[in-house]
Amino acid sequence: MDHALVHPGDRDKDAGDGAARKNSARKHLVGRAAAAPASLRRKEAGESRLNWSVLFRNFALNQRSLQVQIRQMIVAAIEERRLAGHARMPSSRELALSLGVARNTVVLAYRQLVDEGFLESRERSGYFVADLYRGDAASPVRTETRARSVSGPDWSDRFGLTPSRQRNIVKKLDWLRYPFPFLYGQFDPSLFPTNDWRESARGALSVLEIQNWARDLIDGDDPELIDQLRVHVLPRAGIFAPPEEIIVTVGAQQALFMLAQLFLRKNTRIGIEDPGYADARNIFGMISDRVVPLDVDLDGLVPSQEVAECEYVYVTPAHHCPTTVSMPLRRRERLLELARQNDVVIIEDGYESELSGESHGAPALRSLDADGRVVYIGSFSKILAPGLRIGYVVAPAPVARELRALRRLMLRHPPSNNQRAAALFLGLGHYKSHLRRVIHALNERAELVEAALERHLPRWNRLRGAGASSFWLEGPLSLDCLALAHEAEKRGVLIEPGDVFFMGEAPPRNFLRLGFASIARERIGAGIAALGQAARALGN
Amino acid sequence: MDHALVHPGDRDKDAGDGAARKNSARKHLVGRAAAAPASLRRKEAGESRLNWSVLFRNFALNQRSLQVQIRQMIVAAIEERRLAGHARMPSSRELALSLGVARNTVVLAYRQLVDEGFLESRERSGYFVADLYRGDAASPVRTETRARSVSGPDWSDRFGLTPSRQRNIVKKLDWLRYPFPFLYGQFDPSLFPTNDWRESARGALSVLEIQNWARDLIDGDDPELIDQLRVHVLPRAGIFAPPEEIIVTVGAQQALFMLAQLFLRKNTRIGIEDPGYADARNIFGMISDRVVPLDVDLDGLVPSQEVAECEYVYVTPAHHCPTTVSMPLRRRERLLELARQNDVVIIEDGYESELSGESHGAPALRSLDADGRVVYIGSFSKILAPGLRIGYVVAPAPVARELRALRRLMLRHPPSNNQRAAALFLGLGHYKSHLRRVIHALNERAELVEAALERHLPRWNRLRGAGASSFWLEGPLSLDCLALAHEAEKRGVLIEPGDVFFMGEAPPRNFLRLGFASIARERIGAGIAALGQAARALGN
Repeated sequence: MDHALVHPGDRDKDAGDGAARKNSARKHLVGRAAAAPASLRRKEAGESRLNWSVLFRNFALNQRSLQVQIRQMIVAAIEERRLAGHARMPSSRELALSLGVARNTVVLAYRQLVDEGFLESRERSGYFVADLYRGDAASPVRTETRARSVSGPDWSDRFGLTPSRQRNIVKKLDWLRYPFPFLYGQFDPSLFPTNDWRESARGALSVLEIQNWARDLIDGDDPELIDQLRVHVLPRAGIFAPPEEIIVTVGAQQALFMLAQLFLRKNTRIGIEDPGYADARNIFGMISDRVVPLDVDLDGLVPSQEVAECEYVYVTPAHHCPTTVSMPLRRRERLLELARQNDVVIIEDGYESELSGESHGAPALRSLDADGRVVYIGSFSKILAPGLRIGYVVAPAPVARELRALRRLMLRHPPSNNQRAAALFLGLGHYKSHLRRVIHALNERAELVEAALERHLPRWNRLRGAGASSFWLEGPLSLDCLALAHEAEKRGVLIEPGDVFFMGEAPPRNFLRLGFASIARERIGAGIAALGQAARALGN
Repeated sequence: MDHALVHPGDRDKDAGDGAARKNSARKHLVGRAAAAPASLRRKEAGESRLNWSVLFRNFALNQRSLQVQIRQMIVAAIEERRLAGHARMPSSRELALSLGVARNTVVLAYRQLVDEGFLESRERSGYFVADLYRGDAASPVRTETRARSVSGPDWSDRFGLTPSRQRNIVKKLDWLRYPFPFLYGQFDPSLFPTNDWRESARGALSVLEIQNWARDLIDGDDPELIDQLRVHVLPRAGIFAPPEEIIVTVGAQQALFMLAQLFLRKNTRIGIEDPGYADARNIFGMISDRVVPLDVDLDGLVPSQEVAECEYVYVTPAHHCPTTVSMPLRRRERLLELARQNDVVIIEDGYESELSGESHGAPALRSLDADGRVVYIGSFSKILAPGLRIGYVVAPAPVARELRALRRLMLRHPPSNNQRAAALFLGLGHYKSHLRRVIHALNERAELVEAALERHLPRWNRLRGAGASSFWLEGPLSLDCLALAHEAEKRGVLIEPGDVFFMGEAPPRNFLRLGFASIARERIGAGIAALGQAARALGN
């Protein structure tokens, strides 16, 4: 086939580079007649070796010692961590050929690099990069920034956003290594339903199931998961919604992010609880300049005049974040009434709602909402595992439609193998029994924490809503929670300073969150004792 | 513990509702002394029944027949699809108790609903909702929008974005049911490495591995996957990057979305190939008003003056989307030079780069980039399965830092169980062998497609870059690809009309994309024959 894809219309074949034909409505592929037809050239790309030429780009035959050059280039690539540990080096024959040097030159370079510890030689397999700089992407070990961006872009000027500068909750990634991790929302291996999840995940690996999930759902979700949410999960909070109003998300976080994208402009007035969820504040603050703090008391968000003045309000009625108090039914109704009268749209984060025992008492705002102004967000992170990243949002139909289109642009859909596994987990009844187990374990631990606090920090105020997986603590005014966190860490205790939950430039420093979802029963007493010591060491 | 979390500072206890204390830097939880301490109230929420009160909210004892009311409310909930098929109804005793009616009233209502087909009675298990309206969220079957939003918000006025109105690639979700699905980027069960993926996914389900992935990585990634990408995947395109420059994403789509968020403002000039990837156009167009079309020829993007005038350029050099042509090395170098001279930042989408045989010839722009102005995007969707949603981005360190912070806000991190499974898949050597198999199968199919096109549509121009999984076809000017798609569908043939890849109000209608990654060998000949019939039926 010698056709070139020439559009036989109004196109000037030589108009190539510079010509400005921007507004021509009909632009097509112009063919210079293809020298060799691109089609059906078969080069078995799968066989490809790795592309080493790039590493030796500056190699020059007429410079210093060839062997030294080779060594320098390899060492630079290893030290700049461009070459990964365990990476296999090209064979000496291959490299010699591509650089145009004698094979022995490469062999000598390799041997010396082995002597110096940069490479490892494995019999019959060749040479491999030694594992000098292994570590996860987040760890800053020996990362020299590469010198190569001498003439590169001035990035500071280019970012429309700089999310890295936001004030946020900081948790140690290596928290599992500490004896007393009092962290919120982390994962406790002893509570994870290993066998039940395995059964579900394996179920999703059958040939038939793979056919169901492996395809691109484009903007859809696994209908099985939507069904299971409607039958087993949402009705616990009193929510009965048709499938098209439910959208699965990559954790509750993605739901928040999408709602911010959809609802907010620069001057949109959105109210958030203060103290409140730091990530929500940061997400909304990325777009809106008018994120306003709203009062909170022991019944949660106060339905004040400030609420009435907002276009949107973000609220955590099941368990207020971070104090864990639940909003009573009467206040929920009052809040909805206020929203209706003032055309406020409510973003309800069902934060820990599975744990809150909500279904015995107050149903979700969304379920009480008579005119479709509440968007509900939920998650499996607290109950199952945060690493799975499964959340969902229940929204009025017009909102759901835009969310679906937005999600398509953002990432299409959350991984469908996990959606199917979660659907099986729910369908097999594991969710219900697992939930019971988690709540039991959390309450048991809470009693131990409470008793230990009473003993070691008796004068600190503490708060825990029914079923919550953390305490909210208030120390004396003289307490500096950041100093305490530092002092406690020395004793193997991790806590979450509370300042980050407050808005404003000078947040109070005498609060902290004490999560106990990821610490074993046996460790609780000693951990709180050590926390008490740390507080006393600071004079509190 | 009777402490209330009162901050003993400057707070007026009765300043409750209306008072404007917005700028008080120190706002804390105000306590009315809690009547009953919230802490340690144990209500075994896990035992919770579902919360039915919501469905019967408007039930009134003094209205018409109680039994009729109950039936009406249940029927309404089923017809509005608020009640899911297979949902278990509350027992008659339970419902009677909560509504304050005689049990027999409920029993009679339930029995009649069974007669009418709304409920099903299962012996000893109770009453269940019949499965009248089952279907996935996307299907519009019998969705009457609820009447309840009478006084609800006027949403049209509230959206900062309306992504649902964008022109986009539309694929049938039920394409598997068609005999001849010539679609791009879909999933072929016969090519999926079922056993190898199962081995990897099961490996990720060991107790030890679960501990590794189940926790919240916050803004991190699985270090094993990053390592495997550095050793087995990126070097194929000549990319050698340190771990902190690599970020895993929920498919390549999320990488694009994040880059748009980070780089673009309303007036940022960003160039895209025309024709080009519709999703990229839509993602950039959500933020920037200045998305400009750039010329493409048989060597891909033309390094023109228009390129030089852009702040950002999005380009698919491995296989241009949708034409599948590859950009030769010399043009890559020219493009980079132009970018350097004019401080253009390049977003390189390594679209099908695994298939393109790139590593034998031209390395990625990112690998040739001497001053850190190229951001590279890759994906496992084409090779493994789109449903898994695993992509990645390789960016200069300052960009990677912001991307990581942005991803944290957006969704924290892609599900870590899938990251670990993919790492095992790569580590066990499955990627390499699978890639070989896919490329072989695609080339085999391509020959069949080519031969069939030569036979049935000999006068249409066609294009396929080495290794590509689709053909780009140009019919006669009289061809209307939308009419053809419709006509072909009647014959069981699905194709992708090409108009959506072009910018502008009046895109050409005589192009189409013919993917063959999801059609079996045996079906190809008959499918193309049927496509030829459809074309002739339309007079082409």
